[in-house]
Amino acid sequence: MRRILLVLSLLAAWLAGAVPALADEGMWTFDNFPSAAVAKAYGVTIDPLWLDHVRLSAVRLTSGCSAGVVSGQGLVMTNHHCVVDCAQSLSTPAEDRVKGGFLTASRTEERQCPGLQAEILVDIFDVTRRVTPPDQAPGGRQRARDDAWAKAESDGCPDRIHYRCQIIAFYGGGQYALYRYRIYDDVRLVFAPEFATAFFGGDPDNFNFPRYDLDVAFLRLYEDGQPAVTPEHLTWNPTPPKVGAPVFVAGNPGGTERLLTVAQLETQRDLALPVAQLQRSELRGRMLQYMQESAEQKRLTEAPLFNVENSFKVYSGRQFTLSDPAFMEIKRREETDLRRRVANDSQLRATIGDPWTKIEAAQKAYGELYLPYRQLEAGAGSLSELFTDARTLVRAAAERTKPPGERLAEFSDARLPLIGKTLLDDHPIDARLEELYLGFWLSKTREALTNDDPDVQAMLGRQSPEALAALLVKGSKLADPAVRRALWEGGQTAILASEDPMIRFVLATDARARDIRKTWEQRVSAPSDTGAERVAAARFAVYGQKAYPDAGFSLRLSYGAVSGWTERGRAQAPFTRISGLYERATGADPYALAPRWLAAKDQLNGDTVLNLTTTNDIIGGNSGSPLIDAKGQVVGVVFDGNIHSLGGDYGYDPALNRAISVSTAAITEALDKVYGRRELLAELTGK
Amino acid sequence: MRRILLVLSLLAAWLAGAVPALADEGMWTFDNFPSAAVAKAYGVTIDPLWLDHVRLSAVRLTSGCSAGVVSGQGLVMTNHHCVVDCAQSLSTPAEDRVKGGFLTASRTEERQCPGLQAEILVDIFDVTRRVTPPDQAPGGRQRARDDAWAKAESDGCPDRIHYRCQIIAFYGGGQYALYRYRIYDDVRLVFAPEFATAFFGGDPDNFNFPRYDLDVAFLRLYEDGQPAVTPEHLTWNPTPPKVGAPVFVAGNPGGTERLLTVAQLETQRDLALPVAQLQRSELRGRMLQYMQESAEQKRLTEAPLFNVENSFKVYSGRQFTLSDPAFMEIKRREETDLRRRVANDSQLRATIGDPWTKIEAAQKAYGELYLPYRQLEAGAGSLSELFTDARTLVRAAAERTKPPGERLAEFSDARLPLIGKTLLDDHPIDARLEELYLGFWLSKTREALTNDDPDVQAMLGRQSPEALAALLVKGSKLADPAVRRALWEGGQTAILASEDPMIRFVLATDARARDIRKTWEQRVSAPSDTGAERVAAARFAVYGQKAYPDAGFSLRLSYGAVSGWTERGRAQAPFTRISGLYERATGADPYALAPRWLAAKDQLNGDTVLNLTTTNDIIGGNSGSPLIDAKGQVVGVVFDGNIHSLGGDYGYDPALNRAISVSTAAITEALDKVYGRRELLAELTGK
Repeated sequence: MRRILLVLSLLAAWLAGAVPALADEGMWTFDNFPSAAVAKAYGVTIDPLWLDHVRLSAVRLTSGCSAGVVSGQGLVMTNHHCVVDCAQSLSTPAEDRVKGGFLTASRTEERQCPGLQAEILVDIFDVTRRVTPPDQAPGGRQRARDDAWAKAESDGCPDRIHYRCQIIAFYGGGQYALYRYRIYDDVRLVFAPEFATAFFGGDPDNFNFPRYDLDVAFLRLYEDGQPAVTPEHLTWNPTPPKVGAPVFVAGNPGGTERLLTVAQLETQRDLALPVAQLQRSELRGRMLQYMQESAEQKRLTEAPLFNVENSFKVYSGRQFTLSDPAFMEIKRREETDLRRRVANDSQLRATIGDPWTKIEAAQKAYGELYLPYRQLEAGAGSLSELFTDARTLVRAAAERTKPPGERLAEFSDARLPLIGKTLLDDHPIDARLEELYLGFWLSKTREALTNDDPDVQAMLGRQSPEALAALLVKGSKLADPAVRRALWEGGQTAILASEDPMIRFVLATDARARDIRKTWEQRVSAPSDTGAERVAAARFAVYGQKAYPDAGFSLRLSYGAVSGWTERGRAQAPFTRISGLYERATGADPYALAPRWLAAKDQLNGDTVLNLTTTNDIIGGNSGSPLIDAKGQVVGVVFDGNIHSLGGDYGYDPALNRAISVSTAAITEALDKVYGRRELLAELTGK
Repeated sequence: MRRILLVLSLLAAWLAGAVPALADEGMWTFDNFPSAAVAKAYGVTIDPLWLDHVRLSAVRLTSGCSAGVVSGQGLVMTNHHCVVDCAQSLSTPAEDRVKGGFLTASRTEERQCPGLQAEILVDIFDVTRRVTPPDQAPGGRQRARDDAWAKAESDGCPDRIHYRCQIIAFYGGGQYALYRYRIYDDVRLVFAPEFATAFFGGDPDNFNFPRYDLDVAFLRLYEDGQPAVTPEHLTWNPTPPKVGAPVFVAGNPGGTERLLTVAQLETQRDLALPVAQLQRSELRGRMLQYMQESAEQKRLTEAPLFNVENSFKVYSGRQFTLSDPAFMEIKRREETDLRRRVANDSQLRATIGDPWTKIEAAQKAYGELYLPYRQLEAGAGSLSELFTDARTLVRAAAERTKPPGERLAEFSDARLPLIGKTLLDDHPIDARLEELYLGFWLSKTREALTNDDPDVQAMLGRQSPEALAALLVKGSKLADPAVRRALWEGGQTAILASEDPMIRFVLATDARARDIRKTWEQRVSAPSDTGAERVAAARFAVYGQKAYPDAGFSLRLSYGAVSGWTERGRAQAPFTRISGLYERATGADPYALAPRWLAAKDQLNGDTVLNLTTTNDIIGGNSGSPLIDAKGQVVGVVFDGNIHSLGGDYGYDPALNRAISVSTAAITEALDKVYGRRELLAELTGK
């Protein structure tokens, strides 16, 4: 019923004039930020210098999070939940750094996070003309575009040690930019609080408010074994902003789908979301039960379970948004309006054509191909790292023998270094969890495609899913990074000669997986992308330039204000305070306080703002983004959205959608009085 | 994509003239069977004698299944999956009668199934006028109706030892009948094959075809410690019917919702089904993982897991049917047509009014109340037997102090004996599974209602769901039938004095559960039922008398023919044979043959028909129904439907919807050559 409110306010906005961007809505690129609108709404000036400063202080983490540089010595602030995999990798049965926190005493104890890379956006170039081939390119348009992309990325970053170049497609392909990142591949963990502190309230409180989490962690960028020098960084402001004060979020929203057509939304609602959520729910149940078998299993499962439960809640929010007929009705009206305007304008009609009908036709192929595509390709292996590593090794070996333009997109020269780092860095792999993931995937594949499907027969042979999973995991040596390195460096020869059962399994099933992927790309992705380009062009033409593109884990800036919200007539205040944390604690997981917090209770100022809600338009991927005031100083770190923000994938509702941050005030108080980290505080405050 | 076919054929039917019942469609009551239509379609005569004979041979099992009497000495045939709970109850860690089968050598080894009662429908009386109170009844219409029901059920069966009376509402309340059943409360297990034989192909093959299951079991009705004398019984015909031959299914379809309005279907699609399925999927995951911890846990979990997985597939089928926009469009057109006809007929308009709008209004209340109603009342305790027993004890003690008309419906005098039997019969309860179920339920309740909900706070206090579940289960003595009996007989005094933590927990939370139930009944059930009566009356008036009512686990007869079907241009034959079972076996669970079957391979006639598909309109609850030929002889036992039958909750599609039976031919062959049960065969064949 919560969605009813969203729908009413969106409906009101639609009736008011169908402007695409509502108040505070938008995940804006730094080269198209609506400074004038912000000045009008909040009376503050966001000038190019401000934008450059913030952009150069904003960090993208390859773990799928955002972060901000907060000192001149490479110190970076993000969320605890963005480094929980790292803390897990640095743990042992004897020392659980997820449960106990990563609490160093000096810089020498800072430890590298396996597979993690930090990236700072240093340049933006428009390359739309360069990478958009003519319709009649020799060898086909797709091939020509792939070539142009690979070449542009390669040319832009001759120094691949320090830089990474990435082409970003905007507006469904209406515009392309080359983003050049300064990369740091040695990122070390500096500070992480206890899991119980960072994730107080656990899954039950996740995406709810009031909330009482110190979901913060610090990392440090290293260069040549030394802390990086980072003159561009955000100044620490430990005073929380007032209600109504303008605030900004610089980060990397992972993805939105606000430009999908109604036909595409229906496919998500009726097929993709339900199938994925039902599988995720079963996996969650398996993991929850697995955890209860022993303390060690609990330790190993807690971090991956967090990811599964977090996704489950995110997609539940999406599913219920799309299942609201009133919400869909708004989308339908918007689409009807746009189509009518195109149809009534002869010039537009000639340029745009009818992409909606083409996209709708692609949905039929989506329906036919989704289950095999999901099970054999997109979701193959579930969370198994051994399977993922084996597939990366097998495919990289084959792809590296091909010219760049003919490779699978993820194996371009620009992307290979990060793939290699992710693969080769040492991280612990738990065999029993691997069996759980693989057995789950194999059994869901049989369930989805039925036992009589030839692909299922080819995968399982005469084995049960569980027995095959055990055989592959027990027989594989890929958990050893030296083995992975040998296969990575040995290329196709080493792969084909390998007797590792996981490599053999991937080799035996990969042709079919590539096959279904190719069919999917031809019959679903390509027509959908081409159609989306046209729809985006239509929106441009009809609604004008000041629109923001759908998110895709590249840097964006959102603006808004500190604000609570009103729900069913009840006002929700925007702040929680440290005293509330103690009131909410029951002593039982996930409402149990860590011992340090119990001990520090009397020293802490209970009035300190702990978490706060703001109207910024964010989504998954923004986790760890700095919350910035009008002066460009950091006042918090975004870690969540409220329950209404979950429909944000498809639309933003200014009345209800809220971002949730940890305040710098609470971080300051905790570093000082709970963790005794004066030197870290001194680095942050410059004192 | 499978549903597209269903939709097209339904659409064709609708365009052809909107008759409510299609060829072979219908779950007919025995007093309104369309013999003329059957004679016309199949050239066979179904006369009152045939109907009486079949009705008196048809059995309803209180475990939620159907069955048929197949000898004069009380022998009853049903499905293995209908007795798997019984086989589980009769097992020990040392003797697993689910895995190994229940294979007796003589009648003295037949063992009583705890809690199981068999019921044969001996009389049908129309009581519509007697139990339909006037609109202005003193004390309110609902109260007057409850009184009249209780009195009619009580008056109809003065002998409560041998008879049970039940009022059955048809057509959403347009018609009422009193069904009088001869009851047998001593039902013993005679024969059950191995789980691997009965459920060969397991969950992957469930609801799929080709299928190779010997899903059969035999029970025997006992009276005064002796086999019951049952002169009315079905004659055994071991020759399978030919393709196209007419066949009949006499059984108890559990429930259909074909008369729901579009607004109600949308609520199911958008809210009730997704919530229930996501929870069920997680429970499934927990159980699957729990099973893998030890052989004993596997043994104890296999039977309840079957029920969960079976339900999961059933409701998946329903969800995807309702998620098909084309299917909903047909329902919408049907409804528009009916509403138009009512609106255009002034007399009808005056009688019927606009029940659709009233039902639609009740959906708003449904949305608001569903989560608390489900978590606190309808689905409380998940599968926990200790919780269910505690709630039955607590409520029965309170309800029995009230006059019949004021009680909760399930505690009427006519129903108390069965409630008592179910509660008091001895059956093993596994403490660890109980903890799993209860912890699951408590944690899902917190998730659904949020931690800040006062009901959640009242339930959990300062405990975690897992800790509370452990405390309740470990402290409770209700697993001991003597303890249950003492509380049952001790009534309200004993209950209030009990220190059993599960009883205390239910006592502490029951007021709130009753409260939400009352609100639900007033705001959702009552207006929906009243509306459904009117819609049913409209259908009667517009489409005429020859319609069948929605199913509700009372006796029905469906007709049809042996028939395969065509799917995506491929013909599916209606028979599988014993040779196919051996071809499909891989040796790996669930495609592993039981040792007896491996040993008997050469003795068996591979051409024997094992499973067959027919066009009979069936649904869950029909499991175990005898498949009967035109002569009234039994030729099989229904155990499943194909995947297309799962949408049968909302509509029947003659092109695709198929019932699946085990043939008597295969049962005969197996009893003879696999199990060496000549005396049982002699009893069946009368030789």
